[in-house]
Formats: sequence, C-alpha cells, structure tokens
Amino acid sequence: MSPDCRACRGEWPPAETFIADCGPANAYLYADQFFPGWTVLVLKRHAAEPWELERDERNALMDGVTQVARALATVYEAKKMNYELLGNQLAHIHWHLVPRRADDPVPRLPVWTHTHEPLALSPAEQRARIDAIRARLKK
Amino acid sequence: MSPDCRACRGEWPPAETFIADCGPANAYLYADQFFPGWTVLVLKRHAAEPWELERDERNALMDGVTQVARALATVYEAKKMNYELLGNQLAHIHWHLVPRRADDPVPRLPVWTHTHEPLALSPAEQRARIDAIRARLKK
Repeated sequence: MSPDCRACRGEWPPAETFIADCGPANAYLYADQFFPGWTVLVLKRHAAEPWELERDERNALMDGVTQVARALATVYEAKKMNYELLGNQLAHIHWHLVPRRADDPVPRLPVWTHTHEPLALSPAEQRARIDAIRARLKK
Repeated sequence: MSPDCRACRGEWPPAETFIADCGPANAYLYADQFFPGWTVLVLKRHAAEPWELERDERNALMDGVTQVARALATVYEAKKMNYELLGNQLAHIHWHLVPRRADDPVPRLPVWTHTHEPLALSPAEQRARIDAIRARLKK
C-alpha cells in the first residue's frame, strides 16, 4: 500500500469494471474499449517492478496473466494477444492484455501507435463484455 | 521450430547482438538503440503465446525476463522498466525490455509513440553495451 498511488487508494480502475480475482491481481475491463476486450490485471499490493515480488507471487501473477489472456483470445477471436507492463504513468504493476483481432486497424503495430477517441461503452455493453469474459474464465 | 519463422530460421536477431543465455530464452541487444539498453529476450523454441508453454518453462522464462530487466535497470539507471510481449509482426515469443531513463523524450508514454530514426551503434559501441549488461548479469 503506497499512499501516493491511485491504484492503492482504490481510485483506479473503476470498481464497476471488475472482472475477476486472479490470485495476486484483479482483472478489470479497460475503460477505453476501442480495441475490444482490452483488460488490465492490477496487482493487489503495491510493487513497481517484477523483481520486487517473491518468485511464487510472480509466478502466480503470470498464471493469472496467461489464464485471462487465453480467455480474452477465445472470446474476442484474437489473432494475437499483446501483453504490456509499462507503468510510465502509474508505477503500480498492472498488465495490459489486448486482443488483436482480424479487423484491427494497425495489425502489425503496437496499439499505442493508433491515435483514436477513447471508446467508452454504455453500462449495459460494459456488463455484457465483463460477463462474457467471466463465463469463459469459469470453463 | 517453425520453418516460416525468422527467429526459428536464425535470421533474427543478429548473432553479433547476443548478450546471454537465459534458460528457455536468449537475450540480444535490440538493433535500434535510440532508447539505450533496449534488449529482447527470444524464446529458444517456437511458441506464440504464454499458454503454449509448460508452467515450469513459463516461470523460467519470466525469471530470465526479471533478471535481465533488473540488470538493465541498473546499468542504464532506469526510472522504470517496460516489458512488452507483442508478436504482431513475428509471432515467436520475444520480450521487449526497455529501460526508461530520466532523459527519456516521452517519459509518460510507450516508446512506440515516439517516431524517430533508428539508432544503429558502431560495432565497438554495441560491444561495449553488451559487455556492460553481461558484467552486471554475472553479479
């Protein structure tokens, strides 16, 4: 718990985007759904870099990353999954998991190269995406 | 081994950029050194997604990612490390490990947002960077 950290203070991600408890981390649907299914896995405790974790904790975190990525790939019919741990704006471990689909606007490039208006879903659409991912995770 | 894969065929990364054997993967200095110390960890066998690996293999890969990232952070005095597994152009698992330094041109953004001329080092400069990372990895 770091008092200056927005993730530790519970200010990010929004509670209503919660998908699932993944052991050392929680999964949330990313607010910008321009790339459908974009999900973030946020470590429950404060750490900035993987070497700050015990090996068992890091392995459990990567099990969660792998399990959620596989579910997203199925639900969103990804041709490839992207996995990014950056922390340039918020140095609290959170993994961006982004399905890259056949209709991707920049299939050969990282998502960050594609400037676009963030796509916020309606509450009902958001709920439908969360439910679909949850259902797949339970299989 | 996948016959259509540039990594499997040994065409990428260049042999002279080899840094170290990290168990399931090899580390190489990335050809574009605009962001100093950018390194790639390339899986020795062919796989596209982490769920294609056995858990032990995935854990050993992430140990290598963590160990190399920590060495890069020290040698390049990174404020933050970035970790990216994309595979949009080459779907053979390779991790981009990028030290983000105090003099970074876009410190709050992913490296891909900063268009720039790729910076190729002279053979002597490249060798010096590889030697510095190797020396740190041995500590």
